[in-house]
Amino acid sequence: MPYIPLEAHLPGITGLLEYRQDSAAPIRELTQVLMRGPSTLTEGERELIATLVSSRNQCSFCTAAHTAAANVILGETDTSEKVKKDLPTAPVSEKMKALLTIASQVQQGGKNVTPESIQWAKEEGATDIEIHDTVLIAALFCLYNRYVDGLATVTPVQSDFYNNLGNRLKEHGYNRLKNGYEHLKNQPVK
Amino acid sequence: MPYIPLEAHLPGITGLLEYRQDSAAPIRELTQVLMRGPSTLTEGERELIATLVSSRNQCSFCTAAHTAAANVILGETDTSEKVKKDLPTAPVSEKMKALLTIASQVQQGGKNVTPESIQWAKEEGATDIEIHDTVLIAALFCLYNRYVDGLATVTPVQSDFYNNLGNRLKEHGYNRLKNGYEHLKNQPVK
Repeated sequence: MPYIPLEAHLPGITGLLEYRQDSAAPIRELTQVLMRGPSTLTEGERELIATLVSSRNQCSFCTAAHTAAANVILGETDTSEKVKKDLPTAPVSEKMKALLTIASQVQQGGKNVTPESIQWAKEEGATDIEIHDTVLIAALFCLYNRYVDGLATVTPVQSDFYNNLGNRLKEHGYNRLKNGYEHLKNQPVK
Repeated sequence: MPYIPLEAHLPGITGLLEYRQDSAAPIRELTQVLMRGPSTLTEGERELIATLVSSRNQCSFCTAAHTAAANVILGETDTSEKVKKDLPTAPVSEKMKALLTIASQVQQGGKNVTPESIQWAKEEGATDIEIHDTVLIAALFCLYNRYVDGLATVTPVQSDFYNNLGNRLKEHGYNRLKNGYEHLKNQPVK
């Protein structure tokens, strides 16, 4: 039961983004720029950063949503599972392992990012903007995870819900659709 | 020494907001809406939330900047010091003590927010939107603190720097000034 009155058919972040739309608009815009804007990191790589940070913050809704988005973009489920459970063995580039390590340090706190992990990322070819974006994406999901859980929003249990959301995030990104989340109205939430 | 090349005269968040302006614009807009938009929380109360969260995240730049902003808005320095060091004795309303407690729980993690602290805030007259905004402001500063420290930005030591920044935040809020931070160029940074 959320701490504030949110529409019952809008679980997790979806109800919050409808609750206060003047704050939601720049949150959506920031996310769209970072996650879907021009970048030398693929959309799948950026979703893996979101997935790892959400997982480390134990935010069930965000972890399931971005795992689903990463899976539908990558076309397989192995990478996201390994990134969450055993990063060293994940089938990603060494550069991504370094960037995901930086993201995991950001999750703990800004001061936890070490010169060694930055050096590792640079040695593996990470650019300054890739390092910048990794830190900012990780910080953004520390915001999202706290927003979603800090207000005790509902976490659906059906995988269908997240598969649909993952498809939506692949097809439409983070922009608000014309009808908001009307298409979710007929989906069971609990 | 920052991990990415930032302009030497722009310490803390200021260099980051100039480094990538397409992500900076929605960050500024979100902050302006939450911290200076219409609200039943005063600007001083909102700056105290930012100050407390930044302090708990041990982000020296953000703590000094928002302490200065709170002080210049409130016209005294006692409240921000007490909020940081001994919240129960701070000269703020019981409602603000409850909201600041919620903010301190958000800083630790979304799941740390307790039904009891929400109940306390509601009993002291906090509205749903005040509770929403408190959680989102606290989450936003968890983003800022990680962004600033995760990229090892420079933290000026002179109090003059923060007093000037506090005045700027009081007079102009979080919008980008026409000349960016040109006015800081003649200030010593280290």
